[in-house]
Order: sequence, then C-alpha cells, then structure tokens
Amino acid sequence: MKIRLTAIILFVLTNSILAQQSKEDSLFIRSIANEILTNGKVYDNLRVLTKDIGGRLAGSPGMVKAERWGIDLMKESGAENAWLQECMVPHWVRGGIDEAVMHNNGKGTKLDVVALGNSMGTGKKGLRADVLEVGSFEELDAKADKAKGKIIFYNYKFNPTFIRTFQSYGDAVKYRGGGPSAAAKYGAVAVIVRSMSHSTDNNPHTGATRYDSNYAKIPAVAIGLKDADELSEQLKKGEVSISLQTNGHFLPDTIGHNVIGELQGTEFPDEIITIGGHLDSWDNCEGAHDDGAGCVQTVEILRTFKALGYRPKRTIRFVLFANEENGLRGGTKYAEEAKAKGEKHIFALESDAGGFTPRGFGFTGNDEQFSKFMKWQPLIAPYGCSEFNKGGGGADIGPLGREFGTAVAGLSPDSQRYFDIHHARGDVFESVNKRELELGAVNMAALIYLVDKYGM
Amino acid sequence: MKIRLTAIILFVLTNSILAQQSKEDSLFIRSIANEILTNGKVYDNLRVLTKDIGGRLAGSPGMVKAERWGIDLMKESGAENAWLQECMVPHWVRGGIDEAVMHNNGKGTKLDVVALGNSMGTGKKGLRADVLEVGSFEELDAKADKAKGKIIFYNYKFNPTFIRTFQSYGDAVKYRGGGPSAAAKYGAVAVIVRSMSHSTDNNPHTGATRYDSNYAKIPAVAIGLKDADELSEQLKKGEVSISLQTNGHFLPDTIGHNVIGELQGTEFPDEIITIGGHLDSWDNCEGAHDDGAGCVQTVEILRTFKALGYRPKRTIRFVLFANEENGLRGGTKYAEEAKAKGEKHIFALESDAGGFTPRGFGFTGNDEQFSKFMKWQPLIAPYGCSEFNKGGGGADIGPLGREFGTAVAGLSPDSQRYFDIHHARGDVFESVNKRELELGAVNMAALIYLVDKYGM
Repeated sequence: MKIRLTAIILFVLTNSILAQQSKEDSLFIRSIANEILTNGKVYDNLRVLTKDIGGRLAGSPGMVKAERWGIDLMKESGAENAWLQECMVPHWVRGGIDEAVMHNNGKGTKLDVVALGNSMGTGKKGLRADVLEVGSFEELDAKADKAKGKIIFYNYKFNPTFIRTFQSYGDAVKYRGGGPSAAAKYGAVAVIVRSMSHSTDNNPHTGATRYDSNYAKIPAVAIGLKDADELSEQLKKGEVSISLQTNGHFLPDTIGHNVIGELQGTEFPDEIITIGGHLDSWDNCEGAHDDGAGCVQTVEILRTFKALGYRPKRTIRFVLFANEENGLRGGTKYAEEAKAKGEKHIFALESDAGGFTPRGFGFTGNDEQFSKFMKWQPLIAPYGCSEFNKGGGGADIGPLGREFGTAVAGLSPDSQRYFDIHHARGDVFESVNKRELELGAVNMAALIYLVDKYGM
Repeated sequence: MKIRLTAIILFVLTNSILAQQSKEDSLFIRSIANEILTNGKVYDNLRVLTKDIGGRLAGSPGMVKAERWGIDLMKESGAENAWLQECMVPHWVRGGIDEAVMHNNGKGTKLDVVALGNSMGTGKKGLRADVLEVGSFEELDAKADKAKGKIIFYNYKFNPTFIRTFQSYGDAVKYRGGGPSAAAKYGAVAVIVRSMSHSTDNNPHTGATRYDSNYAKIPAVAIGLKDADELSEQLKKGEVSISLQTNGHFLPDTIGHNVIGELQGTEFPDEIITIGGHLDSWDNCEGAHDDGAGCVQTVEILRTFKALGYRPKRTIRFVLFANEENGLRGGTKYAEEAKAKGEKHIFALESDAGGFTPRGFGFTGNDEQFSKFMKWQPLIAPYGCSEFNKGGGGADIGPLGREFGTAVAGLSPDSQRYFDIHHARGDVFESVNKRELELGAVNMAALIYLVDKYGM
C-alpha cells in the first residue's frame, strides 16, 4: 500500500513538473515569436544579402563579399565566437551569355536558355545540330541510333500530381544531373533539358549537372517551359535545328569558407547543436529563397537568443555553409573537422527549402529521438510547423549525419511556389514574404530551444 | 458463446467494410486531385474574371459582366440547372479620384489614400483641417475636447504577434468600421485610418465602413503604411493639416444576382449542400484573392465532378454570392429563399480567405457533426488541409447557418500574405499562384465528396 501511494505521489509530481515545464516552454517560445515578429532583422538582412551582394556562386566575387557580410553579421548578432572555416571550393564560371536559336521553316527564333552549372561551353564558335526530343531515358535508349550528332532535348514534365513539389523535383532532376552523359554515350553533341518547374513563366532553371568521365563532356542548357512546349510543337511539324553558344568552364579550385558563429553551452558545452543554411547561390539570380532565406533565418535565431538573454545549456553553432550548389565542400569540411577534433554533434537543423510559410519539420534519427521530437509538436504547431514527419535534413548537414549518426532535421516550408523560382531569375528578394520568412525563423528557434533544453 | 462469436464476426466485418470504404474514398480523392492538378481550368477562369472583367462592386458594370460570365461558366462546367437568383444590392460609387495632401513646414506632400467603402465624399470643394492622431478609441475619448473640427487619424497598428493574420484583422478592423462615427460624435470632420495590413508597400486598403445614424456621416479614407508612419512622424514635429477630396456616395439600390449552378442528388435530392465564394469585389483591385479565388474554386469542383462522372447522392449547389463586401445581400437572400421554400440545407462550405496554399478547414456544427468531420482529416491532410479546427464558415453562408443551424465550414488557406493585398491594388491575378489555387479546390472537393457520401 505504501509503495502504491509513493507511486501515485511520484506520478502526480512528475505530471505536475511536466505540466510546469510545458508551460515554461510555451511561454519562452511565445517570447521568441514576439521578438522575431516585432523586432526581427531577418527581412532587412536578406535585402542586403540579395540586393547589395546578389548571386554568390562558389569562387565568385559575390562569394567573397557574402562571407565578409556573414562574419560581420554573426558578430553584430551576438556570436560569442565567430570564425571562417576554410575549404577549397570548385570554381565554375558561366563565362558569358548563354544563347540558343531555333531554326526551322527558314526562320530563326531565340530561345530562353541557361547553361547548366558545371557544364562545359560550346566554345566561341558555338554549335548547331538537329534536335531529337525524348521524354525519358528509356526513350533515349530506344532512339539510340538516331542520337549521334544531335542535340538531345529531354522534355520530361514536372509531375503535377505530386502534392509536395520536392517529389516532382526528385522525380525529374535526373535528366539535369545525368542527361548530358546519357546523351553523350550515344554520340549526341549537346543537351537541352526542360526546366524542373511548375512556373507559369518562361524563365529557364539552372542547377548542377555531373559528367560521367567515360563520355564526352557535352554542353548542356535548361530551357523555359513555354519555349520547351514550343520546341516540342515545332518538332511535331518537322525537323528543327538549334544553334547554341555557351561558355561554361572550370577555373582552378579556390578558397572558400563556412561562416560560423557560436554560443557556448553553459552546462554541456561539449554537446554541439548546429543550425544552418548555405551561403552560395547560383549566378543567374539573387538566391533569395535558395538559400539566402536559410542563412538569414540562422543568424536571426542567434540574434533572438541574445536579445532574450537566453544562455543555452549546450553549444549552438550557427553556420552559413559554402558551396552547396555545385560541390558540397562546405558541409563536407564541417563534418571532417568535427571528426578530426572529436566533437560531439547531437543535432543539426537546416533551412534550405525556401523562405515560404513554415509547415513542418522532417526528422532523421533513431526511434527514441523521433518520439522525443514528436512530443514537441504541440508546442511548435501554433507557430506554423504542425506537420512533424519522419525523414528529412539538409544537404549541408548530411555529412554530419552520415559521419556521426547525428540526428538531423530540415525545415519544411510550403513547397508550392519554390520550384517556380528555384535556380531561376525569379529567385529574388521580392519573391520572399517578410512574415513567412520570420515565421520560419520562429519555428526553427523553438525547435532548437527544445533540443538545447532537453537534449537529443 | 454464439452471441459473442456473432459480435466478433460483426466487428470484423464492420472494420473490413470501413477499411474498404476508406480505401475507396482515398482513391476517389486522388482522382479529384489528379483531375484538378492536370486538367484544371481554375487558373484560366480566374484570369478571365480578373483581367477581362476586373473590379466588380455591387451595382457596377463589372458586377453585371461578372454575373453573365458566371452563369455561362456554370453551364459550360456541367451544371444540370443554372440560374440567377435576384436580390437588391446597395450601389455605392467612389465617384472620382481620392486625393489627400499633407501640409506642414510650408510644404505639401501627396499621400496615398483610398476612400472607405460606403463612405460619403467631401464634396467637390474638398476639406482641409488639422490632424489629431490617436492610437485607439480610448485615446480618442481622452482627447475628445481636441477633436472638434479635426481630421482624426487612427494609427492603430496591425498586431504582428498574432500568428494567424485574421486575428490581427479582427483586432484592428473596428477602426475602419466604427472609426468615422466615433470621431463624428466629437465633432471631427473626417477620418484617416491606418490600413489593416502587414504589407511592406504603401498601398492603401479600403473596405466597408458603417455610419451610426446618430452622427454626421463624415468622409473617411485609409492610408498606406509608409504614409501613415510618415504622417505620425511629422505630427511629432508639429502641426499638420491635410486637404482631402473624396467623392463617395450612394445611388439607388439596384438589381444584383447570386449565380447558382446545381447537380441534383440521386438518392437524397432534398438534402442540399452549398459551396460558394462571393462574386463582388472592391473597385480598386481585380479581386483575385478576394474573392475571385473562391468563385473559380467553386466552379472547378462542379467541373471536376462532371469530368469524373461523379453523380452526387445529395443535391450540390455551387453559388457565386452577390454583394458580400458592402451589404451581404446575396447570402441573406439565399437563406431567405431557402426558408421560404422549406429547403433542407445540411452543409455549406465557403472559400473567402484567399487563393493561397490550403492548410485546413474551420468547422461550425454540433459535437456529433464535428466528430464526423474530424474523422475525415486523415483522408484530406495529404492534399494540404491538415489543420481541422472548430469554428469557421464564411460571411455568405452565415445566414444559412443562423437560419437553419446548417453545419458550415470555411477553407483556411495560409493567411500570411492575405492582408498584404486585401482590398488593395495588389489584389491582382499575378498575386495568385496556380498550384495553390488548384490545391484549394482539391481540398474543398474532397470535403464535399465526403459530406455528400456520408451526410452531415
């Protein structure tokens, strides 16, 4: 009887403590939201990054400016330690203006194209060849005997029936990544890829391609959706040739940096929590959503913790990663150095899916960690992230997860508008909504606060 | 023993039937989504409504064009019956260009203002008076002795700490609705209201005001946020007068219509389900989100049911309501006629919160109905509406709910961008995203399908 009574008292006490904690957490998360929604600097910081600096591909002058901006902002936002972590980055340059003209019926029509990142240019003379349209790799294989000397036009459509557009992207991006080498294998001289987008405009979308070293590195461009439809239409009527001029090439690898700010843990300084986004962007846009948003949200969490006088139990690192777009050297370096120093990384969170209204988090960890994560859903849901799902993370924190088994998570903003502007000239400051950007930071800060308080 | 076995068999059978039903429902909702996301006309229809017709305030030529467009579209989209339901509507006209100039320090600075809907103009001569700024009704009461002959400037800020912006709107809109009469009570000659918006631009936002017949009907305008801040800044430095010219007035009530399309129920034709949006919009914008979106989504559900060969058990009415913005005569008439005819209205759903990415539904009904509604959440959540909440509906279906106790629900799109453009010149076709608009229709169609199949 005594034991039973003790158990009951313990149960009641535990529940009362839990309720008290939950109330405290709820209040602190409310104060995070109030700070960001009332005094937030996240939108103004994004304006500077996108408008004053702009595109910042690895190795570019924009990269150097952005790193300087980043380290200054970390210090200004209250980082106790702030440093640049050096890493060698690839240095691909577009090298000039990408041009394409469609020739048929005795007419020449300009097409809106952009060379794929990491692709080799046509050379100054350009090239001209007949076009062979295929809807898939399977169709290319079937038409292999017709591919020689041709420009292969991959007209694979972004699937509209997937509700989350990242699924459509995962489904279609193979033609951008592997299309050039698959075509070169059959003797094609260049590749045109239909842009991976649901947009209603005609802007072409770039992104990295990767050559298989067994085949010729043939030029490759992406084409806007309207032009893709028009090209396909013209091909139904008869032969079409396209003249193409692109100038992409690699310069020697150069020095880039991860920009890191830190708040040291007061109780468990050896347990490290990482929050980040990537500082690089493609050169044909301002990289506002991809991933200026993730960068300024990361710094905003630092600023907010300082503004609220929050002293974390664990060490929190705020990281603007280098070279996500065409090399992932920043994320790789970060994990390598963590390993070399024997650091203990308990959790990492990335925002690299746009600055749109937050809807949830995707989480990768073991079952115990996942169940802990799921318990926090009711605390965060009122701020937008109600969808807590299994699976997720980010490219830059991927190496950390693979190296240490660190639990990782990714912010999941609403995905409907993302691929309208992804890697295209529409990815500019004006396409970001102030409140949506701020709310992303609110939800991330809430999650980081909970991981810091309760461990992972 | 025999009874127990029967019970077990029944239990297993019931569960198996439920699982089978759920699978059927899931497949049918998938087919709804595929149809809308692949063959949807909702975006093209919105283009016509906003670009070819544009603003369509009750009584305006735009209203007449929109009604004609609506009835034609209902027929084209497969309505078995389609008709115009006549109702008298108020006929407020802006009457000219709204102008305001701020005078101080010997300078005149133009301000961006828009007369409030239903407000009386200054007359051709305009007026000029000193400005008295107040942050609230309480402050106005405290400064009552200074109000006589002044222009009262309500500078109440849209609260950024509410996560759902409709809460900020609910909090601030009283200054637009009741501000003019509250000021007239103390002898003020006009009112300027800070726009109810989180926008980063300077566009002023109109919307209906209502005069208390005990006081003078003084002119009233809304001012853009940047101008409001500037005016407040100048008032800190010294006296400011403003000259104002507005021309609003009422013409005699005129004839408007609800546009109604119908699919007749095959099993329970007397049980009526209503889906709707409102066809009218303010005159200073295209009314794309408010509420062109709700109108084209409504018609899209009709088109989709026909395209899929779906024959509803219950009668479904697709309604484009008249005059939501400044009279609610359409919604009122619809409920009145339903009552006069002794109709049985089991459910009504409205989309009038913008064409943004869908996040949930708000539901008003009894506990049994609410629990039925909640059971459908897992079927609809994969399409975006994961947040099923108590409380919600729509202005136009409100009279139906009040008259019959009909269960009502409202689509809840993400609210962050809505008040950036609400009743302002930014509410144009270009601010609507095709996929977001389509997904709203998908989620609404799914809910209507379930209500039709299982009753309410």
